[in-house]
Order: sequence, then C-alpha cells, then structure tokens
Amino acid sequence: MKIFAYGIRDDELSSLRKWEAAHPDVEVGYTGDTLTPDTAKLAKGSNGVVTLQTTPYEREALEKLSEYGIKSISIRNVGFDNFDFKDLNDFGMKLTNVPVYSPNAIAEHTVLLMGRLLRRVPEVDVKFDNGDFTWAPTIGREYREQTVGVIGTGHIGRVVIKILQGFGAKVVAYDVYHNADIEKQGLYVDSLEELYKQSDIITLHVPLFDSNKYMINDKAISQMKDGVIIVNCARGELIDTDALIAGLDSGKIGGAGLDVLDNENSVFGHKWGSIDNLPNPKIKNLAERLNVIITPHNAFYTETAVHNMITVAFDSNKALIDGETPNNLVDTSK
Amino acid sequence: MKIFAYGIRDDELSSLRKWEAAHPDVEVGYTGDTLTPDTAKLAKGSNGVVTLQTTPYEREALEKLSEYGIKSISIRNVGFDNFDFKDLNDFGMKLTNVPVYSPNAIAEHTVLLMGRLLRRVPEVDVKFDNGDFTWAPTIGREYREQTVGVIGTGHIGRVVIKILQGFGAKVVAYDVYHNADIEKQGLYVDSLEELYKQSDIITLHVPLFDSNKYMINDKAISQMKDGVIIVNCARGELIDTDALIAGLDSGKIGGAGLDVLDNENSVFGHKWGSIDNLPNPKIKNLAERLNVIITPHNAFYTETAVHNMITVAFDSNKALIDGETPNNLVDTSK
Ligand SMILES: NC(=O)c1ccc[n+]([C@@H]2O[C@H](COP(=O)([O-])OP(=O)(O)OC[C@H]3O[C@@H](n4cnc5c(N)ncnc54)[C@H](O)[C@@H]3O)[C@@H](O)[C@H]2O)c1
Ligand SMILES: NC(=O)c1ccc[n+]([C@@H]2O[C@H](COP(=O)([O-])OP(=O)(O)OC[C@H]3O[C@@H](n4cnc5c(N)ncnc54)[C@H](O)[C@@H]3O)[C@@H](O)[C@H]2O)c1
Repeated sequence: MKIFAYGIRDDELSSLRKWEAAHPDVEVGYTGDTLTPDTAKLAKGSNGVVTLQTTPYEREALEKLSEYGIKSISIRNVGFDNFDFKDLNDFGMKLTNVPVYSPNAIAEHTVLLMGRLLRRVPEVDVKFDNGDFTWAPTIGREYREQTVGVIGTGHIGRVVIKILQGFGAKVVAYDVYHNADIEKQGLYVDSLEELYKQSDIITLHVPLFDSNKYMINDKAISQMKDGVIIVNCARGELIDTDALIAGLDSGKIGGAGLDVLDNENSVFGHKWGSIDNLPNPKIKNLAERLNVIITPHNAFYTETAVHNMITVAFDSNKALIDGETPNNLVDTSK
Repeated sequence: MKIFAYGIRDDELSSLRKWEAAHPDVEVGYTGDTLTPDTAKLAKGSNGVVTLQTTPYEREALEKLSEYGIKSISIRNVGFDNFDFKDLNDFGMKLTNVPVYSPNAIAEHTVLLMGRLLRRVPEVDVKFDNGDFTWAPTIGREYREQTVGVIGTGHIGRVVIKILQGFGAKVVAYDVYHNADIEKQGLYVDSLEELYKQSDIITLHVPLFDSNKYMINDKAISQMKDGVIIVNCARGELIDTDALIAGLDSGKIGGAGLDVLDNENSVFGHKWGSIDNLPNPKIKNLAERLNVIITPHNAFYTETAVHNMITVAFDSNKALIDGETPNNLVDTSK
C-alpha cells in the first residue's frame, strides 16, 4: 500500500516519520506542494492521498488522481468547504477529515490571551524594551475576580470553562444546545443579552453560520459591561470589525484577543516586513493597539494538534484504502 | 484617631479612599515619600503609621515617631527585614505586616509565564513586529502535556497546583512540610532529585534561607530533563544565575520565566532607556534571550493584591491603636 501526502510542513515531519515507522507495510511519499492539476502526478502509483490546503481543490487535480485509481482522500484539518462534493461523487471518491485534533490547543491559547490582556502584557513589554523595570502604571487584574461569558459549550468551550474554573473565575455560558454537565453546574444563562450584561470577559466558541455573522455588532457591544474584554478564537466573521474598533475607540471595550479576523486571509499567512505595511486598514488599526493582541489563526498550532492531524489523517486514509468506513467519513451526499 | 501613611502610590489611592470612606471616625493623611528622619514630622499628631518601603527604616525616624507618641506601625507588605527589632523594642512600638495579600496574583502570573514560554510568545511577538503572520517555525506546546514540578506547597504553590490541574497538566510536588490535601492527592515526590527527573517545567515557591540559596545550581540543573523550563516567582537568590546562563547556552534549559533575580535591585525599579543600558551584565544577558521572560518583581501587582495590602494594613493599624492584638502582629522579641 502507498499513501502520498501533500502540503507537508517541516513541523509535521517527525509525526509523519513516526507514523511511517509504526506502519512498515505502508509506503509513504510526500511533498511540500499543494495538490494541483500539475502536482497530482506525484501521487501516481499511490492508493490514497493525504492533504491540507486552504485554496480550492480543482476538479482537474481530482480527475487525475481518479485516473491513477486513487479514490481515498484524507484531509488533515476539519473544514472541507474547498471541495466541490460533485467532483468527489463524480469520481467515486471517499473523503475523511479530522473533526477534533486538540480542543485544548485552542482553549489554552484562548485563556492565555485573556491573561495577557488582564496583566497588560503588551504594555509591560513596551516598558521592558525601553528598559523600564518599574511597576506603575501597569497594574494587573486577576482571573479569579472575573466573570467570563463563554458563548458555545462544544469541545473547545468546555475545555475553556474547565481551565477558567481552575483559576477560580466565575463562568456563565450560552449555547443553543445545552450540554448536560454544564447544565448540571448551573452555568447557562437564558440569553446572549444576559451573558453580555454579566461578563467582564466574553469568549466565542461557536461555528460560523449565516445567522450569527457579525453577532458581535454595535447593538451587542452596547449591552456589554464597560471595559469588557472580547476574545475570538472561533471565526473572524462573528465580529463586526467596525463595531469592535468603535468600541475600543470609545473605551467601551477594554481589550481584545483575536486569533481570527474578518477577511483575515488578506493578512494572515504572509510576511509584510512590518505592521506598517499591512494591506487591510482595519486589521492594521487593530494591530497597532496595545490593548489588542492578534495571533495569525495559530491557536490550534501545537505539537499535540499537529501530531493528531497527521496520525488521524493517515490512519483514516489507510482505513479507506482497506475498505473500512472510519467514523470521520465526510457525508458528501448533501 | 489619625493614621498617617507613607510611600503611597497612585494605584493605591482608590483603595485608600474606600477605606477612609468606610471609617469616617479615622482621619487619614498620606505622602508619596518614604519614612525618613526628615519626613517623620509629617506624622506629627497621628496615632499610627502605615508604611511600605524597601530601604531600611532608620532608628532616627522611628525615634521621632515615638516622640510624637506613635507606637503603632503597620507595613503593607510581608517582609520586615528592613526593621531593626531593637529599635522597635526600645521605643515600645508594635508592628504588623500583611502576611498574605493575594497568593493568586503570584500564582496566576507564574502559570502565565509558563504558557507564554510554551507557546513561544516572545518569538511570535518578534514575528508580529516584523509583520510576519505565518505559523512556522513557532509551534507551541500544551500545558496538559507537561509534568510540572512545584517546589513549595504553601499559599502560592497550592494555587499554582490548582490552576495547572484545571489545564489538565500533571503535577509533582516537593516540600519539607507535607500539606494534607496535596498528600491525599498523592502529588509529593520524596526528593528534589526525583522532582527534577520527572518535570518538564519546574517552578519555585519556597522562602529563601541560607540553606537553599542557589539551590538551582549546576548540579541541580544536570539532574533535570533536557529542555526544562524553569520559573521563579519566589526569590532571586534561589537560582545561581551563572548556572542558569550556562544551562540556557548549552540548550539543557529550554526557557525561563523570572519575576525575581539574584541582585535584582541593581536593575528593578528603575528606567534604563533600553535593555542595552542595563548595568548588570548577567541580567542583561538573560534579558536579551527570546526564551527568557523577565518581569520586574511584579507578580504580586494586581488590583486585588494592592487593595488587600491597603485594607489589611489600615485595619491592623486601627486595631493596634485601639489596643487590640491583631493576629498579624509581628513577634519582635527574637
Ligand atoms: N482558532 C483556531 O485555530 C480554531 C481551530 C478549530 C476550531 N476553531 C473554531 O472553534 C469553533 C468551536 O469549535 P468546537 O470544536 O468547540 O465546535 P463544537 O461543534 O464542538 O461546538 C460548537 C458549539 O456551538 C454551539 N452553537 C452553534 N451555534 C450556536 C449559536 N448560534 N449560539 C450559541 N451556540 C451555538 C453548538 O451547540 C456547539 O455546542 C469552530 O466552529 C471553529 O470555528 C478555531
Ligand atoms: N514575586 C512576588 O511578587 C512574590 C510575592 C509574595 C511572595 N513571594 C515569594 O513566594 C514565596 C512563597 O510564598 P507563600 O506565600 O506560598 O509562602 P508559604 O510560607 O505559604 O509557603 C512556603 C512553603 O515552602 C515550604 N518550604 C520551606 N523551605 C523549603 C525547602 N527548603 N524546600 C521545600 N519546601 C520548603 C514551606 O514548608 C511552605 O509550605 C515567598 O517565600 C516569597 O519568597 C514572591
């Protein structure tokens, strides 16, 4: 059996080698390139393909794979919206994803962003660079004194709650679906408005739908506490950036930790030489503030997560080739 | 009744005003200056003095207070080694301190330093300043994958343990005195050597004695795991800075988070214009490294801690003046 992998990064190699060593019956080939009509030929002679990219998977590339007899595709991430299911179905291809690789990676990053804002780390860092080793005026606040509103109590939101409880923070939660354990703990409030009213910090852990695009808008912000901290490690389009900037300008919003941003692909994944060169004026505006921390959608980016992405994707691809039905098979019928 | 306070900082004023409002029977006076033979006269007419300074309390200053009939002194911090007890006894003075103002302030800062090192935040920050929004090579690690060795399970160490457990980290602990709860959880190892052997991260929460000065020396470091992260929010003299630097140079030590440093007063509390100007070459060496985070002994510096320092000190001073014996009375007999 042979599996060929696309878009392999340096940080994935040690996990890839480990998987290879544990499966001497499987030959593994790989490239750093993404899957395109041109690079498809690299997979010739393989039984399955493991891949990861943010650009669309072109029909022509899939067609070539199909011609080589490859019908098993396994992506190393969650999202598959860059596939046209019609292509997959036309070529009789099966697709798996990695639905959960490490909720903790994102949850830990989320809580760390809160702490860095509570302790005014960006300001303390500027003082440090200026050789200023005095205390004032950068006095901090403690997690345990905060009420944190967690919107979305799925895999990630629940880990966030558990970590915050270790700190002794008060948690209130909102979700359209009530998790039994969070319900038993009595953490749910009945409405987003109630959550906004009570929370010193608000953190988002819901998927993006048409219905919740820009859910954090002027109206929502007006219902929040003065000086609220907003953290978003879910999807950029959940926040209306103009409303966020207006809230920061007026002081209504005390700080923001943002791993995702509306229209982030205009900036993330690239090297601009300096913040001054960012081509997106709204993101540049945010990046220049000392009470805003931006990370380039890397909340997930831990050794554990990357290891799980590799391992689950290769395991699933092997299972597909072996004719099994892994439970992370993507339903391409709708 | 009148209480006069020395060394009051701007960030203490709101708590001071709150205490004043809650005690209309007490007149409160204050100055930003420390207590010296010269400033002692400001307290004339008062019944007690609240103070905080790192420089020695001079006999002449205390003598003047005594002449004004002031016998009640309350410091807003823990340490009273800048008093000569003979002076206090000669003048018949009673002294209170604030033994515990917020273990959480220090514990939260400690855990935050760990997270910033695990996620390589100083490196990511440099990339950010260079407009670099790519992922590689700054892949992070997760708290939950770490074994953390906590040395000292007193007020602060125990809060550190509770927070780390919320993250799902494994904790091993060492203390000459075994706390019942930590014992019940089975977290203690029998020796420091065993703790060094098992820990990915080591954090210090013991007081400084002659016997443990430079406990983290070449020998101790040689017993640790390769790539260990060391965090010190206790006392600088617990670590031999030369050994730390050698360990960082060789790569044996993967990172360090330091809120305290040997000979820190040569640097902390001052503004040097730039890291280049630091007068202490060892501290400068550490400050220039991207896998070392230095904070200027401000782990304690939160709104909650400062509020408690003010409130407990004024409460205690009032109690002393009223002839009561607060349980934070310092035993000046030995
Ligand atoms: N920053 C990153 O690197 C990164 C990585 C992975 C996932 N994410 C984001 O995090 C989000 C959460 O991930 P997860 O694994 O916890 O997902 P999940 O599916 O386990 O949980 C999502 C939760 O949101 C709830 N929900 C759905 N719509 C809602 C609404 N309108 N209001 C309130 N609650 C609603 C669901 O009931 C569910 O409990 C993902 O959707 C994704 O956008 C970000
Ligand atoms: N960075 C800051 O801003 C800051 C603020 C306050 C305190 N501190 C430091 O933190 C330290 C701990 O504070 P705490 O309130 O938890 O103190 P604590 O007295 O409550 O606890 C100290 C613990 O250390 C143990 N211990 C003593 N000697 C030991 C040894 N040689 N080996 C192992 N364990 C030993 C004691 O049994 C005790 O359990 C203080 O001593 C102080 O140096 C730092």
